[in-house]
Amino acid sequence: MDQRIKEAVDLFTEVMVYGTEKVIKSVDHPLWKEYSPEQLQMLKLISKEGQVTSSRLAVLQAVHKSAISSRIKKLLQKELIRIAETEDKRIKMLEITEAGSEVLEQSDRALTEYIEKLMSEQIEDKEIDEFLVLFRKLKEILKMDGV
Amino acid sequence: MDQRIKEAVDLFTEVMVYGTEKVIKSVDHPLWKEYSPEQLQMLKLISKEGQVTSSRLAVLQAVHKSAISSRIKKLLQKELIRIAETEDKRIKMLEITEAGSEVLEQSDRALTEYIEKLMSEQIEDKEIDEFLVLFRKLKEILKMDGV
Repeated sequence: MDQRIKEAVDLFTEVMVYGTEKVIKSVDHPLWKEYSPEQLQMLKLISKEGQVTSSRLAVLQAVHKSAISSRIKKLLQKELIRIAETEDKRIKMLEITEAGSEVLEQSDRALTEYIEKLMSEQIEDKEIDEFLVLFRKLKEILKMDGV
Repeated sequence: MDQRIKEAVDLFTEVMVYGTEKVIKSVDHPLWKEYSPEQLQMLKLISKEGQVTSSRLAVLQAVHKSAISSRIKKLLQKELIRIAETEDKRIKMLEITEAGSEVLEQSDRALTEYIEKLMSEQIEDKEIDEFLVLFRKLKEILKMDGV
């Protein structure tokens, strides 16, 4: 088992790293020139989380808080995110704006179209289904506490 | 097709982000306190690439060159990597040292053991095999040019 898990982790990392590289080089969309992959990923995280602090974003993107600040600043300036109105004024929560949701949708569409083109001739329908079943399960496992 | 690819991309991102978070919180190994996930990922990339420039590392980790410099500096200081002797003195290539390979092996082992524990009761053997088949294929697709 051990050896297969190690290969699985290595493959996941390689697909992530080389996939990101390929996507950055190949997706020809003005949004991808304007925003870095981390900025778009952060926008996606804010959208998924609903309302989120910058500290939590730093944890989720696994970087130091200082690296997060400049990404947040850019998204705030472009009004893709805003500071949410919350009951406790001491905690600054970020949330996505409508403009941010639109940017995210466009960026997702460009990415999906590219990946579809890349995969269509070589990945079978059955494999996409297997991927979805497994990754839905992985997501559930990761969301559980106490493991 | 489109909708399934979008879900696949979203799931991949979520498993990556929430998986990294979970691993950072849960893997209790001194190496994981000493080095950040990016530093360990960079060490792995240098190991995989053989010899590599800092510019290429910046591309592969999808960050600005300035963010790469401090990661490299730490790995050089700890002698986990070194500047390779190359014919063209103008190009600085980095390579992993023996100490670096050992750190990587230990870190990989801790990660693999944790993931094995996390998955063992819930992921079937067949699913690991499907994952390996699909991800070997994805890696091949990403390595091809001109797509």
